[in-house]
Amino acid sequence: MIIKDIKLLDEEYKIRDRMNVVIEDGRFLSITKGMPDPEGREIIDGSGKFMMPAFYNTHCHVPMTLLRGYGEGLPLQRWLNEKIFPFEAKFSAQYKYWGAKLGALELMKSGCVSISDMYFDLVEYGRALYEAGMKANLCNGLVTFDDNASYFKDRSYQDTLNLMQWIKDNSAENDGRLKADASVHSEYANRENSLREAFDFADDEGLIIQAHISETRSEHEECKARHGMSPVAYFEKLGAFRSPVVAAHCVWLDEEDVETMVGAGAFMSHNPSSNLKLGSGIAPVKKYFDRGMNVTIGTDGASSNNNLNMMEELHLAALLCRGQSLDANAIPAEDLIKAATRGGALAQGRTDCGLIKEGFRADFILFDMEQEHLTPDYSTLANILFSAQSSDICMTVCNGEIIYKDGEALFIDEEETIAKASESFKKVLESL
Amino acid sequence: MIIKDIKLLDEEYKIRDRMNVVIEDGRFLSITKGMPDPEGREIIDGSGKFMMPAFYNTHCHVPMTLLRGYGEGLPLQRWLNEKIFPFEAKFSAQYKYWGAKLGALELMKSGCVSISDMYFDLVEYGRALYEAGMKANLCNGLVTFDDNASYFKDRSYQDTLNLMQWIKDNSAENDGRLKADASVHSEYANRENSLREAFDFADDEGLIIQAHISETRSEHEECKARHGMSPVAYFEKLGAFRSPVVAAHCVWLDEEDVETMVGAGAFMSHNPSSNLKLGSGIAPVKKYFDRGMNVTIGTDGASSNNNLNMMEELHLAALLCRGQSLDANAIPAEDLIKAATRGGALAQGRTDCGLIKEGFRADFILFDMEQEHLTPDYSTLANILFSAQSSDICMTVCNGEIIYKDGEALFIDEEETIAKASESFKKVLESL
Repeated sequence: MIIKDIKLLDEEYKIRDRMNVVIEDGRFLSITKGMPDPEGREIIDGSGKFMMPAFYNTHCHVPMTLLRGYGEGLPLQRWLNEKIFPFEAKFSAQYKYWGAKLGALELMKSGCVSISDMYFDLVEYGRALYEAGMKANLCNGLVTFDDNASYFKDRSYQDTLNLMQWIKDNSAENDGRLKADASVHSEYANRENSLREAFDFADDEGLIIQAHISETRSEHEECKARHGMSPVAYFEKLGAFRSPVVAAHCVWLDEEDVETMVGAGAFMSHNPSSNLKLGSGIAPVKKYFDRGMNVTIGTDGASSNNNLNMMEELHLAALLCRGQSLDANAIPAEDLIKAATRGGALAQGRTDCGLIKEGFRADFILFDMEQEHLTPDYSTLANILFSAQSSDICMTVCNGEIIYKDGEALFIDEEETIAKASESFKKVLESL
Repeated sequence: MIIKDIKLLDEEYKIRDRMNVVIEDGRFLSITKGMPDPEGREIIDGSGKFMMPAFYNTHCHVPMTLLRGYGEGLPLQRWLNEKIFPFEAKFSAQYKYWGAKLGALELMKSGCVSISDMYFDLVEYGRALYEAGMKANLCNGLVTFDDNASYFKDRSYQDTLNLMQWIKDNSAENDGRLKADASVHSEYANRENSLREAFDFADDEGLIIQAHISETRSEHEECKARHGMSPVAYFEKLGAFRSPVVAAHCVWLDEEDVETMVGAGAFMSHNPSSNLKLGSGIAPVKKYFDRGMNVTIGTDGASSNNNLNMMEELHLAALLCRGQSLDANAIPAEDLIKAATRGGALAQGRTDCGLIKEGFRADFILFDMEQEHLTPDYSTLANILFSAQSSDICMTVCNGEIIYKDGEALFIDEEETIAKASESFKKVLESL
């Protein structure tokens, strides 16, 4: 495939106009000013379009897309006890598959090719993302309220092993698309022994750890009351930071927590919609950027967001850092875009992803810039951050394969997915 | 026209399913469960769609759509002095027309039928909105830095008179679509004498007053230093609140200002994107709602937003009040939707607009709800507030006339408008 005559964001976050991009074997083969010999390749006209790296969403619970709008307006504990937990008790692996497929549609339409996702029945729902042509780092977030529980006897451990086995059995075809991460749900949902075991497991297996950290003020303060230290300090004590950690939310970190995370090279997943919608607050990401933290961007699940639109998270991240710091130049556009692209790829251990660069995996999106709300296209990055909508994305490419184009998913039957998802949601409701 | 079998938001903000809506002579004739006799009317199938009142945007500078992305990353004073003022010196009435037409396209595509707008050359650029089938309350914001200036000798006064004359000359055809408001730009851009004269003029003529009030902390504090009182108190002293006031921004109001505005029945225009993007802050609208202020929603101009998308402002308003107050139930969905619809209509003196109600002007939008990111449609208002995109709006109707449908503006040549706007922008740049 050749994308001809395209404006693009290069590996140094500079805009380059009228370039020609050759993609072969799932990777960028060449990015040149002159038109290369087509050698029989399909040629896509890039005029009027803008190419940038695709999004890597670093925090999601994609099967919960099925719970969109379920339990609105309830405070957190009632939402969990009256709505989410009873629903999840009836949420079969097959229903999770349809929830994940519904989510995959929304993700690819808004330019995302890969997610870090925490839920249950990893192989079963991971299949939906895999079939859609996407990538995912899947994990089962450990929840052990029992003091005597052991991680190695928990369903979380077994679920993770199942996924690792699937990946081993399908290594050639999978080509790194699905990956297994380790995970503990959070400090507050676990006891010390099983947390320590989970962190040891991650270290032994060389896995990334996904966790919720300091999402709400009460969570942060209650951890201090329980353990005399913050969630980050507690996780550090139990050995979490020997592994790469992807810490979702981080709204209420202490100064020392920031130092610890920066020192460990940990990744922070900024989830602005979810944090606002649930009344958790606004993570001070300008400070995190200034201190050199690895900031990435995630949507969280559609049951708290209520969408999976990375364009919206990027837009919100760009607006909020300015409004929060009362500084119209709080974070440069390039750094925000990097957080949603290259930063997310690195948080997923996908070191050859997230840049439009020769030799890298060809994960990218095209925007149709010939639209009234992107006119004039005087500052393209400002247009992307502040004016563009996910509906302006006309192509999403993952590993050199077009998975979404001009309103159509290429490996998902959209009508069937919406119908099956609606039906699955109704069936769970009827069984409650 | 009959919209058949439609789910809609009724005048009490309740969702009603499978209704039939008859529109005649620009107004809602009937809204019934049973299907009325078509009597030869065009029938539009509403199944899978959701109908709600259209948006009334209470703060905009629509010709400035042409300046989208121009002067990004500059602090306010340099932005004004180095970019905006030199540009505006070369910004002819014809160029303003194309800027306004470009803005009209974006506004109607995101569900807006009417704007409160502050700029210059009101008749000339108002024509673009009028031709597009929209409504507008247009004003020329007084700017008089000279102590000896008189409002009645200012171009602002003359521009307003010109518009009033045009409206008088075209009263039958205009049917209230274009209206003239009075306006002072702000406290900081004027001197006492001309402010007082402008407020007297508004009172004498029975006009609404549009103004910027307490947008930034420094503006608010500097007014106190200059006059020993806040902008609201100063305006009150000079007689502004004898008239209905639409106060844009109101990010930094004092407690007494809130009391004054509530007592006067003044309207506050919440512009969350612009306030965030320029680093002005976040207006505490939960408090304003709780005190009974008339909260409305606006986009501000595309040179500070950088878009004119009311869906995004509504979404942001819904998220920010929760994140700011750390309360997941900060403001009910119904109140937020009312602010963007009925509240805005009232701020424009359009008392028979903003509700789906028999006898009211038929200003409404239809959403296509059969989309992956609106599935399941369990909580329709949550879907509208938190999941829907402007691209989900498939029809915008103003005064019973379809002005936008399925991607196409009916009274604007989209291709010509984008081309002319781009060309106008380039010509101004070349002349600098």
